[in-house]
Amino acid sequence: MGKYVFGVDLGGTTVKMGLFDTDGNVQDKWEIPTRKQDAGKLILPDIAEAIKNKMAEKNIEASDVTGVGIGVPGPVDGAGMIYKAPNLGWGVFSIKDTLSELLGGMIVEAGNDANVAALGEMWRGGGKGYSSLVMVTLGTGVGGGIIINGKILTGSTGATGEIGHIHIVDGEPETCGCGKHGCLEMYASATGIARLANRRLAKDDAPTVLRNGDISAKSVFDAVKNGDKVAIEIAEQFGDYLAKGLASVAAAVNPEAFVIGGGVSKAGPVLFDYIVKYYREYVFHGSADAKFTLAELGNDAGIYGAAKLVLS
Amino acid sequence: MGKYVFGVDLGGTTVKMGLFDTDGNVQDKWEIPTRKQDAGKLILPDIAEAIKNKMAEKNIEASDVTGVGIGVPGPVDGAGMIYKAPNLGWGVFSIKDTLSELLGGMIVEAGNDANVAALGEMWRGGGKGYSSLVMVTLGTGVGGGIIINGKILTGSTGATGEIGHIHIVDGEPETCGCGKHGCLEMYASATGIARLANRRLAKDDAPTVLRNGDISAKSVFDAVKNGDKVAIEIAEQFGDYLAKGLASVAAAVNPEAFVIGGGVSKAGPVLFDYIVKYYREYVFHGSADAKFTLAELGNDAGIYGAAKLVLS
Repeated sequence: MGKYVFGVDLGGTTVKMGLFDTDGNVQDKWEIPTRKQDAGKLILPDIAEAIKNKMAEKNIEASDVTGVGIGVPGPVDGAGMIYKAPNLGWGVFSIKDTLSELLGGMIVEAGNDANVAALGEMWRGGGKGYSSLVMVTLGTGVGGGIIINGKILTGSTGATGEIGHIHIVDGEPETCGCGKHGCLEMYASATGIARLANRRLAKDDAPTVLRNGDISAKSVFDAVKNGDKVAIEIAEQFGDYLAKGLASVAAAVNPEAFVIGGGVSKAGPVLFDYIVKYYREYVFHGSADAKFTLAELGNDAGIYGAAKLVLS
Repeated sequence: MGKYVFGVDLGGTTVKMGLFDTDGNVQDKWEIPTRKQDAGKLILPDIAEAIKNKMAEKNIEASDVTGVGIGVPGPVDGAGMIYKAPNLGWGVFSIKDTLSELLGGMIVEAGNDANVAALGEMWRGGGKGYSSLVMVTLGTGVGGGIIINGKILTGSTGATGEIGHIHIVDGEPETCGCGKHGCLEMYASATGIARLANRRLAKDDAPTVLRNGDISAKSVFDAVKNGDKVAIEIAEQFGDYLAKGLASVAAAVNPEAFVIGGGVSKAGPVLFDYIVKYYREYVFHGSADAKFTLAELGNDAGIYGAAKLVLS
């Protein structure tokens, strides 16, 4: 086993790349653009070249490298096959084999980006010390990744951890990004919290600082911290809905911990005041003691997790 | 590897036992009583003795036996530790090590009974051909077992697959066996379907054959098959609630198939008319194509799955 690992986090506009030692200490970090033209044909060759250039720059031999891990925005199975990533122009093929070939046979492992981020948080972030956890990313949407015994749960078609699309509310008139109605993402994402806030404000004239500026997840939780009663009502509803979803996931997979990340998690531990009590209300007793922690790696979770893919 | 495996299904009153070849063909099947006195101290010695007696009777040497699998009614972790089984009088100990010692060092694997039944159905029952599935047992309660890549998902405290305790209904005044309110089990178990039926009948005077006799899951689905409109309404509500729970599980683990067992499943394929359409309504598209099948092994799922534990 070589002493280095590369972790690659492939996004729609940028590829984040990291060089790590096998203990997970980052040695170097850089980015290249994601060139999506020609059905995304240039993406993996660009990544391979960036890795080779870095190896040349640092005088790293192929035998010094344990392998290259890559997280991609689409469903990836346990064998490294991608099942379509429309926003990269990609169809169905083996990322693992293709990138390995471009790297002269180097070991490559591939995973879905949300799952890979969960693995990163387990290795070196908010999930350190746990081997079974659920990472929940509260951003523009709600994403998730599930780690069981230190490994990503990939599922039969790479569609595990789709926590944002658990059905929570009946009779929701608006439509979720997935085409359905009442998904968790509609209430627990950054945009979802703003939706809850706007609906609450429209209900009556109760005074709240939220009437004075932008409505966002940040403004709601800033107001919560200042004791704003209407903001607290919104946070209670957010917590109730999110906890219902997490309790359902816990009933299925019985994790040790939930790691909460994404933009909304910048609100900090105050989030847990509104999630944990409802979680305990809804969850089966066997999973009642699951821990709640905040993600720590931010945008770097993907490169850490990708590197760890090779070491798992 | 020996050519035989024993599968043991430990229940509250009876221990079911099976002798299998390693392809899963049953060679013999028998039962012994579960002696629960003295904090359940006699149970494992009784089982060990029954196995030794069977080996003597059939002239089977220890070297002919690959191992002994056992399913027990309580949470069991991946290492064969039981975390309390109150109705057996058991506390926390290693079933795997204890039974192995009683059998002169034979290989022993232990699992939770619902999980083990799921493994049995995968091996030789309704889940044959799938390696990732969720078994749902609709009996007095609603139980579940999750198989991922051919192995039981055990979770951090052995509390996986607790599908019956997913929160489905807000504001339920009655209390579930678990102490909470609105769990799936309250509507999708045999007693749950009777609850839905009684509530529907109390709502108005709509004519239905259900007013003429016992209200049970069986009488409801018999009436459904005869086109009884009220019974069909009840079945729709059952299907809606159950599908919500299964769609949540699918969002987490993305299985290839759901295998439906337990007493309620005796209604047969008509069940799927009321489950699958709601499942498709609620589930994330990546799991929309999961198959639905009926369990086939009935009360023998436990011994099959226990035997398979040793071979997985």
